[in-house]
Amino acid sequence: MEVTRQNFKETLPTIYSAIEEADFLAIDGEFSGISDGPSVSVLTNGLDTPEERYVKLKKHSMEFLLFQFGLCTFRYDQTQSKYLTKSFNFYIFPKPFSRTSPDIKFICQSSSIDFLASQGFDFNKVFRDGIPYLNQEEEAHLREQYEERRSQSNGAGTPSYISPASAKGPVNVPEEHKDFIGRVIEKVETLISGSEKTVDLAPCTGFQRKLIYQTLNWRFPKGLHVETVETEKKERFIQISKVDEEERRLREQQKQEREQEELNDAVGFSRVVHAISKSGKLVVGHNMLLDVMHTIHQFYCPLPEDLNDFKEVTMCVFPRLLDTKLMASTQPFKDLISNTSLAELERQLKEKPFKPPQVECSEGFQSYDTASEQLHEAGYDAYITGLCFVSMANYLGSFLTPPKPHISARSKLIEPFYNKLFLMRVLDIPYLNISGPDLQPKRDHVLYVTFPKEWKTSDLYQLFSAFGNIQVSWIDDTSAFVSLSQTDQVQIAMNTSRYAESYRIQTYAEYMQAKQRHTPT
Amino acid sequence: MEVTRQNFKETLPTIYSAIEEADFLAIDGEFSGISDGPSVSVLTNGLDTPEERYVKLKKHSMEFLLFQFGLCTFRYDQTQSKYLTKSFNFYIFPKPFSRTSPDIKFICQSSSIDFLASQGFDFNKVFRDGIPYLNQEEEAHLREQYEERRSQSNGAGTPSYISPASAKGPVNVPEEHKDFIGRVIEKVETLISGSEKTVDLAPCTGFQRKLIYQTLNWRFPKGLHVETVETEKKERFIQISKVDEEERRLREQQKQEREQEELNDAVGFSRVVHAISKSGKLVVGHNMLLDVMHTIHQFYCPLPEDLNDFKEVTMCVFPRLLDTKLMASTQPFKDLISNTSLAELERQLKEKPFKPPQVECSEGFQSYDTASEQLHEAGYDAYITGLCFVSMANYLGSFLTPPKPHISARSKLIEPFYNKLFLMRVLDIPYLNISGPDLQPKRDHVLYVTFPKEWKTSDLYQLFSAFGNIQVSWIDDTSAFVSLSQTDQVQIAMNTSRYAESYRIQTYAEYMQAKQRHTPT
Ligand SMILES: Nc1nc2c(ncn2[C@@H]2O[C@H](COP(=O)(O)OP(=O)(O)O)[C@@H](O)[C@H]2O)c(=O)[nH]1
Ligand SMILES: Nc1nc2c(ncn2[C@@H]2O[C@H](COP(=O)(O)OP(=O)(O)O)[C@@H](O)[C@H]2O)c(=O)[nH]1
Repeated sequence: MEVTRQNFKETLPTIYSAIEEADFLAIDGEFSGISDGPSVSVLTNGLDTPEERYVKLKKHSMEFLLFQFGLCTFRYDQTQSKYLTKSFNFYIFPKPFSRTSPDIKFICQSSSIDFLASQGFDFNKVFRDGIPYLNQEEEAHLREQYEERRSQSNGAGTPSYISPASAKGPVNVPEEHKDFIGRVIEKVETLISGSEKTVDLAPCTGFQRKLIYQTLNWRFPKGLHVETVETEKKERFIQISKVDEEERRLREQQKQEREQEELNDAVGFSRVVHAISKSGKLVVGHNMLLDVMHTIHQFYCPLPEDLNDFKEVTMCVFPRLLDTKLMASTQPFKDLISNTSLAELERQLKEKPFKPPQVECSEGFQSYDTASEQLHEAGYDAYITGLCFVSMANYLGSFLTPPKPHISARSKLIEPFYNKLFLMRVLDIPYLNISGPDLQPKRDHVLYVTFPKEWKTSDLYQLFSAFGNIQVSWIDDTSAFVSLSQTDQVQIAMNTSRYAESYRIQTYAEYMQAKQRHTPT
Repeated sequence: MEVTRQNFKETLPTIYSAIEEADFLAIDGEFSGISDGPSVSVLTNGLDTPEERYVKLKKHSMEFLLFQFGLCTFRYDQTQSKYLTKSFNFYIFPKPFSRTSPDIKFICQSSSIDFLASQGFDFNKVFRDGIPYLNQEEEAHLREQYEERRSQSNGAGTPSYISPASAKGPVNVPEEHKDFIGRVIEKVETLISGSEKTVDLAPCTGFQRKLIYQTLNWRFPKGLHVETVETEKKERFIQISKVDEEERRLREQQKQEREQEELNDAVGFSRVVHAISKSGKLVVGHNMLLDVMHTIHQFYCPLPEDLNDFKEVTMCVFPRLLDTKLMASTQPFKDLISNTSLAELERQLKEKPFKPPQVECSEGFQSYDTASEQLHEAGYDAYITGLCFVSMANYLGSFLTPPKPHISARSKLIEPFYNKLFLMRVLDIPYLNISGPDLQPKRDHVLYVTFPKEWKTSDLYQLFSAFGNIQVSWIDDTSAFVSLSQTDQVQIAMNTSRYAESYRIQTYAEYMQAKQRHTPT
């Protein structure tokens, strides 16, 4: 189901109940770009530590926009022995909520945009009809603003946004607005003494409206209801009505309800993420580290500096995660699956020794045909990811005695895969462990080499040709890690390099020490 | 006429001849955002110097994308006594030309995107069908790449991109590729001794292709034509053909022509800007400083640091500019025109004492109906801008004796408006003078005031209430310029502030001195 600003509010109950009844959820995001670093190979060095990788992704990826979010809910129906799915494809855009709300800037990467365009991605749906959102801080801020205004128009307490100078007297009207405010007061006096119930003032500036509110609140503390009304042309004017105390209270209440509604609209898509989070359900994704980072960054809070703090936040937002790319790269799947890209994985999991999962689209939801792929639409990718999870989970059941054809999302068999997010292109650390400390592989066969920028990979192969197979991980155009196949060769390599002029070699341990000395803590 | 990647090449001759025959050109750009600074008011302080404004715009605006470019050509037809117009609306997008071409990142500002969306802007046309472009440096770089490859496959000279280590011997093939290259040589030998004319190698990496080119060039300097071919699936493989010397030359020539074509495609929209530039025609725009900056930045070269260098570059690219917003804000128009925004200007210039210009859309071009506005489509805005220019130019003719109803774009009467670009929201410098030094108004009635961040404009009014009318230009939330109406009050204000604790006052001269002391040159 496509969800845009137009049908978001009416669809929300359907979304909530789909999450509520689900056994697990699958998600996927599409972004306006991946990396604003110098190059992807620099962003994903094969010997990054988990901390280094997190810091790089945070620095070079979070200014892109997550503008399509796929959610597919999977509910197991015991009687039919199959999963019923509900798939939602959300378009997301930070449409400014009002003239004072944050004017979000985001980066687009032309290769990513071009790729999505070639897949038929509908940018107009994003930019014209995208659902807005607020993170928790913005939501709290907006809520405060409403409460402040409310307390002021009820005459309770000194509003904090009146500046020191003007807080002293009743209302400090700048010289050039005195005439204007004088005319407003006249109009209100005419209203009060006359038979009309309501008067509309002419459109004016926000500052003038503020002066009007303050003045009327002070001069006519009772008997008036004052409200800003917007015309179709988005012009704002003030409407003043004579009211008795009961009506005044009623009007205030209605205004509050309208404001609550406005607030909900502004929080927008974040409400869906809150619901996923509150449900505590297993959330499945494919190669999902960036999806998780973007989701938290956009809908919860700016990402913390430190990896451990990020893990803590992640566990609050998504208490149980599972990455199908990591699962497929782990035994017993690793030996059976040659290519773990989503499309390939899905294809291989339909064939022996795996079984295509028993899945049916819930009524009222468009069913995806996995034969005619719609890959790279977030809702479809989430759906496929869920299918992959089901196939792999069920395969684990075949090892039980007696074998079980269906393994639930809560089964103990799946626990080893919880909260381990695939780390792309790291040679010796397969995953980021969200709920505990990370693996710390030995790297004493690794050399750190610096050289002139004319050098190519072939120069490194030549330099180390005596040491058999090597693996090169470029850092930038004048340095790289070189992994030797045998640790005992490290010392030999170090010795032969002693008198070299064009290049320099350090052990990995030396390199890390020097690096830590230069990093402020 | 809408111009996208699909019809760009076939439309180019029409565009060239429209520019060629025109009396003047009007342009307009739409951007993915305006300012990534803290706020527009900070970006456009009322007392910016031209240097300060240029530096701010360069810093805070150039990372947005100019993604729609409007060009409207105006040719005066003597026999009909009217202008014939041709309007082009170009969609622009930096689609990566190849895997090695720059992957442009650009910023989007949600308020700008939302505004364009509300005007029905078609983002899909931009991102799916936008015309690519290269600046001059990128074009030169690509040309060099082609020439390098060509000289290498002709065996002429040592190509400069072979790294030092491998340049020594004939071809240095890394160990792990030796088998692969060996098999290629076998295949070629089979080709040479057999009856087939051509052999296709399997797809391989770019590095392997480079090795193949180098090896074959060295081992078989004659009798072979080697070429990279791309499959429909974008896989690249090498095709080797037996050829005699004549055919070899013919093939090389065809290849060169194809490459020239590819190069032209990559230069893309920049070719239109080159044509505008070469024509030397008068280029008219409305509030065009940002349009000019973006055009140069995107299609010529990164903007220079220094304003004077920018002026020089601008005069090379656009030897003759005219800004209708500046013209409308200058006498004799200033007193007649109350609102110089493009839509309002166009409306007012249809009424007395102005005359609606005699303009007709050229055959084959969609005609715009100015009654049902399509404002904020670049092609339409360019058209309207041209109309405004014609009306104002002709109005100048009414002062001649005898009055002339038509004033040409080359008339002396228009010269005073040349190369003066409107400076938005600067109080005392109406324009940036592109072809000379800028105005240097006295600012000795201006005070620089710093204060606590709780202060509002009303606090400043109150502080200076003894000095009559003042004008406040906010710098940031703790400082502003305050212009007094009389210079002789400056000293009084300075004196009374001597013992103030919450705020501080400096003269403008003092402020500028302190600022220059802190700016590295
Ligand atoms: N005292 C008081 N001030 C208000 C109230 N509503 C709005 N204002 C002030 O008036 C200004 C204009 O408000 P509004 O017309 O709602 O438009 P806004 O500029 O989008 O907030 C705001 O900046 C507030 O400071 C209210 O209920 N009471
Ligand atoms: N801050 C800043 N904004 C500008 C400048 N020039 C144009 N803009 C913004 O760009 C918007 C569109 O500009 P444009 O279409 O060229 O002129 P308009 O039709 O007179 O508004 C304007 O409303 C301004 O907010 C500038 O020099 N500084």
